[in-house]
Amino acid sequence: MGRLPPTLRWSGGALRGRLELLDQTLLPRRVAVLRVRTTRDLVDAVRRLAVRGAPALGVAGAYGVVLAAQRRLRDRDLAAAETALGEETLLLEHARPTAVNLALGVLRARRAWVNGLRGKTPLGAAARAALRAAQAMHREDAAFCRALGDHGARLLRDGGTYLTHCNAGALATAGDGTALSVFFAGRRAGKRFSVIADETRPLLQGARLTALELRARGIPVKVAPDGAAAGLMARGLVDGVFVGADRIAANGDFANKVGTYGLAVAARFHGIPFWCVAPTTTVDPGTPDGASIVIEERDPAEVLSFDGRPVAPEGVGAHNPAFDVTPAELVTGLVTERGVIRNPTAGKIARLLRRAGG
Amino acid sequence: MGRLPPTLRWSGGALRGRLELLDQTLLPRRVAVLRVRTTRDLVDAVRRLAVRGAPALGVAGAYGVVLAAQRRLRDRDLAAAETALGEETLLLEHARPTAVNLALGVLRARRAWVNGLRGKTPLGAAARAALRAAQAMHREDAAFCRALGDHGARLLRDGGTYLTHCNAGALATAGDGTALSVFFAGRRAGKRFSVIADETRPLLQGARLTALELRARGIPVKVAPDGAAAGLMARGLVDGVFVGADRIAANGDFANKVGTYGLAVAARFHGIPFWCVAPTTTVDPGTPDGASIVIEERDPAEVLSFDGRPVAPEGVGAHNPAFDVTPAELVTGLVTERGVIRNPTAGKIARLLRRAGG
Repeated sequence: MGRLPPTLRWSGGALRGRLELLDQTLLPRRVAVLRVRTTRDLVDAVRRLAVRGAPALGVAGAYGVVLAAQRRLRDRDLAAAETALGEETLLLEHARPTAVNLALGVLRARRAWVNGLRGKTPLGAAARAALRAAQAMHREDAAFCRALGDHGARLLRDGGTYLTHCNAGALATAGDGTALSVFFAGRRAGKRFSVIADETRPLLQGARLTALELRARGIPVKVAPDGAAAGLMARGLVDGVFVGADRIAANGDFANKVGTYGLAVAARFHGIPFWCVAPTTTVDPGTPDGASIVIEERDPAEVLSFDGRPVAPEGVGAHNPAFDVTPAELVTGLVTERGVIRNPTAGKIARLLRRAGG
Repeated sequence: MGRLPPTLRWSGGALRGRLELLDQTLLPRRVAVLRVRTTRDLVDAVRRLAVRGAPALGVAGAYGVVLAAQRRLRDRDLAAAETALGEETLLLEHARPTAVNLALGVLRARRAWVNGLRGKTPLGAAARAALRAAQAMHREDAAFCRALGDHGARLLRDGGTYLTHCNAGALATAGDGTALSVFFAGRRAGKRFSVIADETRPLLQGARLTALELRARGIPVKVAPDGAAAGLMARGLVDGVFVGADRIAANGDFANKVGTYGLAVAARFHGIPFWCVAPTTTVDPGTPDGASIVIEERDPAEVLSFDGRPVAPEGVGAHNPAFDVTPAELVTGLVTERGVIRNPTAGKIARLLRRAGG
């Protein structure tokens, strides 16, 4: 990301630290860092998408537990502290329903906190354990991003043009990104290709964030309205589609930013490869298929106004699903940190998770 | 359109009249009427989409010839006047390349002007002939819209939800619209249904104009981001798609606002009927197929900024095709003023044009 601050960063120790988030709602116009000191402020930041992207949300969720742990340091009663921390972090766990990573990050750090309750200063020890868990997730995610990128880069061909949707980059993870990590790795490997970034309405993460990241790394990029993708495919201008995922069901169906499914349908119609790029932490074995994924419906105002000014007549409503579900049968391959699974199925995914050590 | 001024209206006589256009770039925020007195001003208005929609452009083009004719009234040399009028209206004819109606409207009124050059005041007679031709097109278009609506309304079922793209309403024609006329006629016939209006990036004609027209007529409407359509179809929320057309080729392939083709692909994938609604004046027998349709590429700034403020990082380019081409094989039926042609083919369309009297 060149000179941009990191997507998220823990500053200070376990007992008096804070989470610093690059406020993504202001990019590319303004670079501002949010200093988050309470779980409640983190919930706000998550809801208004100051931090976003399934892997980044996972790591943010874990750090959020550390913030909650800091407020429990002077509690006298351990059982009461555990209840209070549980309540506070439950809100965070459910701040956005679709990405499984957020809930998993909260759970992992909370488990670490509970297991850390020991010794002379159990609440301090627990906060330190939660921070260690969050930092481990942070490092893991960065390593996963690199591995994803290396596996995916082999799918790029010189001279190709690849389409991506929303932002699955460094701004969506604690590392180099998922779908965009493929492009960054391809670039490092010396491949020459260009990218079309769907602008991704309503919040324009493609125009605002993906174009910013690709440009910063010197990869040629053009923004396109979401509705233009099928026509660009018909004109032979797209050699492949790479997208991230917010939750992958056990059978390979996956939720991602609204518009992804239409791209998958159009890619299939044109015989263009469609790749879903995500770490195995995005797979939720507890979700059997796409129909079981809860789709977050967001505020209609995101569609009906822009920069606070209305773009539609007063009194009109809007559909504003944040995600849609792409069935596994439309996925050419799932690119994970453990390699590429072509034509993903429940069996192949279960074997991969066992290999990944669960 | 309730209390909105008409989309376009001729004010005054043939010798000292003007064309009044409802400025669609400002809707729904502001209602303003442009008073257009020269062909050059009309070219500007057409290019910046103050007036838009294939049928409306056809009628505007014809009125534009009257404006040009007014500037020739004092010419001494008829041959020189004819050359001057030809040059001035050629610019208008090519102000936008995709809709065939604009060129046809200019040609028809110019032919009337040439044929009208007779008598003691040939240039006055010619201007009057051009105005009569333009007014005839205006009336014809309104009648076509009503007939289209009546044929199309039979395709609506009670309780259905129908998706439309861009604006194919009263604001796109000299009458009640094409695709939207179907909804208006259905409403008049007492059917109950609701509409999803694709917002239609980059210029949001769906959110700004279609939602406005439907709401004014009391038809329930929700705006949706273009990328949401396929997911809404998968969730069973769309019973049919109705769109207009900017040019229909002899074989039934047609150009319409960018995003239409992706809807057609998604509708086919989900087994949802996809209807193209247009008067036979939109058919260009001189265009054999979709591959021969010139697609207008518009200013990248339309995608890269909003209300004059950038939404993408500086230095990034954009794809901004104004239209895409939908092949006839994805069209369930073509709804024309002469009736509905299911599974349109070159033969069926040729027979229809002969019936329409060419």
